Order: sequence, then structure tokens, then C-alpha cells
Amino acid sequence: MFVSNIRHALNVKRADDFAQWYQEVISAADLAEESGVRGCMVIKPWGYGIWERIQRLLDDRIKNTGHDNCYFPIFIPLANFEREAEHVDGFAKEMAVVTHHRLIQDQKGKLVPDPAAKLEEPLVVRPTSETIIGDAMARWVQSWRDLPLKTNQWANVVRWEMRTRMFLRTSEFLWQEGHTAHADAAEAKEHTLRMLEVYRACAEEDLAMPVIAGEKPENERFPGAVETWSIEAMMQDGKALQAGTSHYLGTNFAEASGIRYQDPEGSQQLCHTTSWGVSTRMIGGVIMTHGDDDGLRVPPTIAPRQVVILPMLRGKEGDDALIEYCQSLHDQLAKQSAFGERLRVLLDTRPGKAAAKRWDYVRKGAPVIIEVGGRDMDNDVVSLLRRDQMWAENGKPDFQTPTREEAANGMQELLYAIQANLFQQAKERRDANIRTDITDIEGLKEHFADTAVHPGWVQVAWSKPTGADLDAVVETLKDMKLTVRNVPMDDTPTTGACIFTGAPAVERIYVAKAY
Amino acid sequence: MFVSNIRHALNVKRADDFAQWYQEVISAADLAEESGVRGCMVIKPWGYGIWERIQRLLDDRIKNTGHDNCYFPIFIPLANFEREAEHVDGFAKEMAVVTHHRLIQDQKGKLVPDPAAKLEEPLVVRPTSETIIGDAMARWVQSWRDLPLKTNQWANVVRWEMRTRMFLRTSEFLWQEGHTAHADAAEAKEHTLRMLEVYRACAEEDLAMPVIAGEKPENERFPGAVETWSIEAMMQDGKALQAGTSHYLGTNFAEASGIRYQDPEGSQQLCHTTSWGVSTRMIGGVIMTHGDDDGLRVPPTIAPRQVVILPMLRGKEGDDALIEYCQSLHDQLAKQSAFGERLRVLLDTRPGKAAAKRWDYVRKGAPVIIEVGGRDMDNDVVSLLRRDQMWAENGKPDFQTPTREEAANGMQELLYAIQANLFQQAKERRDANIRTDITDIEGLKEHFADTAVHPGWVQVAWSKPTGADLDAVVETLKDMKLTVRNVPMDDTPTTGACIFTGAPAVERIYVAKAY
Repeated sequence: MFVSNIRHALNVKRADDFAQWYQEVISAADLAEESGVRGCMVIKPWGYGIWERIQRLLDDRIKNTGHDNCYFPIFIPLANFEREAEHVDGFAKEMAVVTHHRLIQDQKGKLVPDPAAKLEEPLVVRPTSETIIGDAMARWVQSWRDLPLKTNQWANVVRWEMRTRMFLRTSEFLWQEGHTAHADAAEAKEHTLRMLEVYRACAEEDLAMPVIAGEKPENERFPGAVETWSIEAMMQDGKALQAGTSHYLGTNFAEASGIRYQDPEGSQQLCHTTSWGVSTRMIGGVIMTHGDDDGLRVPPTIAPRQVVILPMLRGKEGDDALIEYCQSLHDQLAKQSAFGERLRVLLDTRPGKAAAKRWDYVRKGAPVIIEVGGRDMDNDVVSLLRRDQMWAENGKPDFQTPTREEAANGMQELLYAIQANLFQQAKERRDANIRTDITDIEGLKEHFADTAVHPGWVQVAWSKPTGADLDAVVETLKDMKLTVRNVPMDDTPTTGACIFTGAPAVERIYVAKAY
Repeated sequence: MFVSNIRHALNVKRADDFAQWYQEVISAADLAEESGVRGCMVIKPWGYGIWERIQRLLDDRIKNTGHDNCYFPIFIPLANFEREAEHVDGFAKEMAVVTHHRLIQDQKGKLVPDPAAKLEEPLVVRPTSETIIGDAMARWVQSWRDLPLKTNQWANVVRWEMRTRMFLRTSEFLWQEGHTAHADAAEAKEHTLRMLEVYRACAEEDLAMPVIAGEKPENERFPGAVETWSIEAMMQDGKALQAGTSHYLGTNFAEASGIRYQDPEGSQQLCHTTSWGVSTRMIGGVIMTHGDDDGLRVPPTIAPRQVVILPMLRGKEGDDALIEYCQSLHDQLAKQSAFGERLRVLLDTRPGKAAAKRWDYVRKGAPVIIEVGGRDMDNDVVSLLRRDQMWAENGKPDFQTPTREEAANGMQELLYAIQANLFQQAKERRDANIRTDITDIEGLKEHFADTAVHPGWVQVAWSKPTGADLDAVVETLKDMKLTVRNVPMDDTPTTGACIFTGAPAVERIYVAKAY
């Protein structure tokens, strides 16, 4: 096989300008684009295909923990927000408000909202659904026998963000939001952690993205929550990405919506509720965890196509035989399964040079790319490239040339190996870039000011300050453009002094720059 | 087995008050409920489970015709609507308009839209996405090589309806909308019909709902379309339900959005576009096609649970053995497949009387209900009820008592038989209630005025009037509360005079009351 030597890398390297690199990957892999509507993106087939895979896998995990999917209204009356003060404080600044239900043409023929069709009470486009689902729960829960009540919905939500960035922060985004009601605090807290574990498993097993699961400090809680837990992933630039959150809401929303049950003794009790969500932001995490200077690398579990077969067509005699040879490989592969589902295989017979087409799929990050030329066919072999380790030491693409039979029989194992390798690479990088030995603020400053070292995360001793003490810590960190992330669940008891307050430390918390 | 004799039918029979019966089925089967937000419903687990099945099956059909899923913004700038005059005329009266992006508290502490956060240009919550997807197509299509462009999205849309009815007409609803661009009219028209055929197959094969596929008359076209085709289903009260539409849009939207391509000769050409959609309205169709006086009947293809197993628990010794016996049947069934997927089987071991639980699933319309009592277990049999023909001639539930092995081995075949039977019942009823022998308006009036006969549909000779002539026909029909539905695709050439205009007929059209 003729192997093109040209390296069609991206224009921007990760090391040179990570933010710019991120934008270029999205465009080079054809994941999404700006829509022209403020803060909203268009998710294109390859990007949406990744989301469909994430949805399917996570939906199974959510159903396996006993949740049913429902669908609740996109519009929320203002009165719903007025009932939970912290909640409205958290969201009022970024809500899209519907005030009219009709358009008319003005005197110049321009479309304007019809003043005669003004809503008596404006409606908000949901930024999250605690209050509207709370209303439903109040109708559905009567007795302790109705508990626990476990629901989930897949939906779009809107938060009017001032600075947007595709997948990471957009005015409209897609997500799932789970909402449950329980008889008591213990069960609700246990469920909050169970769903956090579902998210950890989804991130690490489905997305090959290592995360730290832990509790957020008070200042980072969801508006209205008693406890907020998160999974945090380290991006290649060292910044933290909050990839999912799970909230124990206490009885705050139950009080606001009147979610009460009669206990076995006949008294009325307030429910304890939880909520938890992950969104299309996950795709931003995948890009910044697995992408390289050639484009995206998609873990096989969530790749819209796991194997792409490219016959090197010449536009002349022999093409038909080549396509037939490739089709037979395609059919052999498409019958197989991995990760509990049929392999997703694409045979691309569009016109165009094979090397150019190969680079399309390199940029898109298809896990396995197979090229087949006339000589390959004559020798009954194929040329196979692993996207996760595509360069040989000599600087050329590291094509393997198994027989067609070997390629077909070994594909399942290869995909598992790629999945494991992507996770391993990300985990090693993450673990190598966590410092635990910094014990004072000066040390923190020096570390994050040193451009010669990878910034990564620093885990510091922490006295769990609250109120004004916590505000002071947040301010100190803000000056360094840092934030507190979470206290890992598996944290061991800590001694020593809090790096911020000097008080005796009770736990260790991650500090990092963040998205 | 003890078979309870009590017939827990609904309060309202179809024959007495069909509209009231429809509402009662939705509530008795726990499909959905009013949300408290104007015109919006909450879709509950059993209803949403049906939608998930429809989505999965239809999504496969849409992907198999070469479409990729994308996601486009929920907000559409007003300027987009101004470009296509007919389109805006059709939708302006029912649009939800976002005018502000922040809430503040007024002096009384009430939340109000912040006057300082008024949008320069209001945004509409999409009622349909031709104009916003048109913008994307204009970016994506450059050359004839980019065509055909075939996209689809699953989304929520909002049309501010004044009179709403769950599933049939709600302000927010869920749907898929497909949008394609083609090089010429012939290909675009062919695709319009291909997707109509996809809808026909989905309705008839997946929903067991017989439909007539045909072209809508000019007055019923989608705003901005050149041709609109529909599938029309007859509900049990004889009314027509438009269950899906497919539109050939000509170059109207291509002109409005600037969707142009360079042809092989190098000249710029306008694309011809299509769009087509089906929605949660389909579920309303399923209810009114298959429901009976005991509740819903769900076709096995789309039933969230196809088989429900109810051990007759006594709350004492022996229950464990009974559950184990049922679990083994459950496991045998859950390994099997039908309609290309694993069987969906529920073993319900909740406390409660078996007969009461049975009636829950009768009302929900689970296709097969299996009850197992201690004596059944001793005899190694089960008591099996087909929901589609549940009453014996003696007025008792028609339980069969196969051995457990027979029940397990025969389940696949039984589900196919139920699916076929539901379709057959609906088709026979539909065909029996179409009249083709009415040749004048008086006859039409008499037929629909006669309360002793099933109103059904009347197919009449028609001269395909347009403009003012068509308006006159629509007025005539409106007085009788009738509408023209569609001209079936398989219509044979027609002779005679148009029942409305007296001019020579060119085709035959269906006339009916409609939802």
C-alpha cells in the first residue's frame, strides 16, 4: 500500500493555544458550528452521533437504577420560581422570558410581538426543572407507599450565558435531569451518591474520561441545594471541567412545591428530594481529554463509527472488485458486537483520494481506519491504523497489515484495547499533574505562576470554612484565577492546618483553574 | 385459578361520549396529565415509554433512508420568518415570543422581566424549523456534490394553540422533523413520497394503525409548501386524524434562505427542499384506534411492557416459591426477541390484590397479562390473557391456561398474532366505514346527519378546484363540520362530475370530520 507521508495536522497545536485548538478540533471534526442565533449552536451529525451514543448508554444506566423517563413542560410560570428564594437568585440573571404569544406586522411591515397578545404571567424557558417537576411530584406523592419516586427527563434547557463556548457553555443545551423524592434524608443522600456513581461510571467507562467524584464546597452548591456533589475531569491544559453534578436538596423544594406524604403512622411529612444532570458539555470534555494535534480521538464506546473502511479507488477497472473485497470485510465486522452492541462500521466509497478521506476520519477521530488498495487485496491483507497511536517512531502513520481474516477476528479485542488505552493515557496524565505537597498560599501562587510546569490540580488541606470565611477564601483564589473544585469521596482523614484559614484541616480539597 | 368476575370498565363508553372516553383512557392508563402550564402536558412513564418505542422504530427507518440526526437552535430570529411570506402568515398567530433575558424583582418583590434586559430582536420559540435549518443548509451546500443533503432532528416545538387536547393539540409537543435539499424537483418530489411511505410503514407496521397516504388539497398545504402529502387514519368515532405530513417545498425556502449549489456546468442553482414530521399526536391516534371500553390496548411493537406477570401473592408462606416460579418464566421470556428486539417483560411483585393489579394493566393495555396462583404453579401452568380479545362469550375474562413451557415457547408467535389482529380489527372497521357511492351534496348532508349510521369517511369525485372555487368548497363543507382530507396515492382515474363544482372530476378525495 502506498502510505502518504504528509501529516495533515491541525493549524493550531494544543501546546500553543489550547482554546484555539479546541475550536479548531470542533470545526475539523465537523462536530458543531455557531448557528447565528446568539449563544446557540448547531450540533452536526458526527457531534450529534456522539451525543446519541452517550444518551443511549447513560439512559440504560439510569433505567437500571429504577428511573422512568417522563417529559415535563418547557415553560415555567414565574410564580414557581418565587417559592424558592435561593433558586431564583441563582437563575434569574440568565433566563429567557416569553412575554407574548403572537406576532403582527407593524406599520413598516416589520414583525413585532402583538401588544394585544401579551401574556398575563410571563413564562420562563426552563433553565432546570426542579420547580415544575416539584409540582408534578406534589400531585403524584400521597403516601409513603408512593416513595421513592424516581423520574428522569431528556430535554433542552436555556440559560442566557454572556460568554459562550461550543459544548462547554451555550445558551441552549441538551441534557438529562433526574429528579427523585424520598421519605427521609438518609435515603435521599444515599440516592444522591448512587447517581454520582452512575455519572462516574459513565464518564470513566463510556467516555474513557477519568474523574474525581466528590463534594463541592458550599459556595459552589446548586441554588437551593443542601449538598452538591460533582465529577471533575482534568482537561489537557490542566483546567478542571465539572462534568456532572448530583444534588441533595433536603426539603427545600418539597416545601416550595408541597411534596408531602402520609407516613405509616398517618402523619404528613415533607419529602427529601434529589436532582442530578449531565449535558452536552460532556462532549467538550471528550474533546479536551482525548483530542490530539491531529484532531479528535473518540472512544470506541461512543464513536458514531468505530471502524471506517476506505477502498483506494482509482476510478477505473478493478474498483468493483476492491469494493466487493471491502464490503465482505464490512459485513463480517457488522455482524460482531462490542460493548453490548453491534459494531458500527462505515464503508466509504465516495469518490476522492484515499489519503484525503483518511484525514477526514483522523480529524473526526474514528478509532480504527482501514485502507485497502489493489495490492492489499491481491495479498488478502488490509492496512489498519489505530487512531489512538497512529504515529510510528519514524514519523509515518503506523499502519499494520493483518490479513483480512485477522482484521475481522481481532476487531472486538482491538476496540476494547483502544478504549482502555485512551482511559489509561488520560488517567496517567491526570495523576501525573496533581500536586499534594503544597502547604501555603505562596506555594500555590508560585506553582500556578510557573509557566514551565503543567498547572494541573493541587490538593490542599482545608478546614471546610463557611460563610464569610469561605467568601474570603474564594476571593483569595479568584485573584489567582483559581477555584475550589471538590473534596474527593475517598479522602482519608487529614491532619495539619488549612492552607487558607490556618485552622485545623478536616479534609483535602482540589484547587484548580476551571472551565 | 380464581378469576374475578368483576368488570372494571371505564366510567365512559366510547359509544356514549367519545371525547370524554378519550380523556378517561389517558388518565386510566396513566399516559399523561395536564401540567398546570397553559396548553402543556406532562407525559408520564407509560405514555413516554410508548413515545420512546415510536422514536426508536421511526429513527431506524429514517436512518435507513440515509438521514443523519442533527440538532438546531430552539430560538429563531424574527428576521428568518420575514423572508417567507406564506410561512409567517401560517404561524405568526401562534408563536411564543421571547423578549427578555433576565428577571428582576419589582418594588413589591414580584418577579418581572428586567426592562434593562430587553432583546434587541425578539426570538421565537420554534414552531417548526424550515427557516433555521435553511440557514444551515445555505452554509453546508456549495456544490452539486453536496447533494442530496438529508437531515433530521428530534425536538420540542411550540405552537400557541387556543383549544388544546392532550397528545392531539398541545402548545408544546415532541416530534421529529426531517429536512432535505435536492438538486432538482423530480428528486425532491420523489423523496417527499419516500418519506410519506416511511410514515405509512411506521403507522401500519409499528403502530398497527391503518392509514390512507395521499395528497392534501391546496387549502390544507403547509404554509410555504408546493405540495403537502399526509397519512390519514380513521378514529373509532369516524373522524380523520392527520397522523403525519410530508412536504415538497419547491424552491420557496431555498430562495428565502439562499440554499444554492453550483451545478456540474458551473452555474448557480436553487435547491429544491422537502420537510416532513410526525409528533406525539401519533399517541393520540393509537389511543383512538385501539382503545376499547376497558382502556387502552397498545400494539406489542410499541408497548413499554409486552408481557406482565402477576403472581397472586397471599402475603404468607408459599409466596417465595410463587415468585421464583414467575421469575423463571420472566427470565425465559426476557431472553427471547420479537420485532427485532428483546421482549419487554415485567414481573410485578408489588403488594396488592392480583385482580386489582390485573386491571391496572388492562387499562394500560399491556398486550399479554399472565397471572399465576398457587394452584397454577402446582399444575405447572399459567393463566394467560390476551388484551386484544380478553372477553369470552360467557362474559368472563378469556384466560387460557398453557403450561409454563408452552407460554414461554409460544410468546413470540402470540405477540405477532396480537399485532396482526389489532391492525386487522382497525382496518376492517376503517374499510367498513368508507362510503364511495355518494354523488351529490344532499347525499353528503344526509349521510353525516344520520346519527344511526357510523359517520366514517366519504370518498367523492372531485375536480381539484383551486383559488376561489376551492374556498367555496371549503365553506360548503364547513357548514357541515366537514373537511377535505386527501386524495389517495393509489387513486384510479375517475369519471363523472365533481360533487362540489359539477365540473368533470379528475380524482377522488376523502371528506370527513377531523381532529
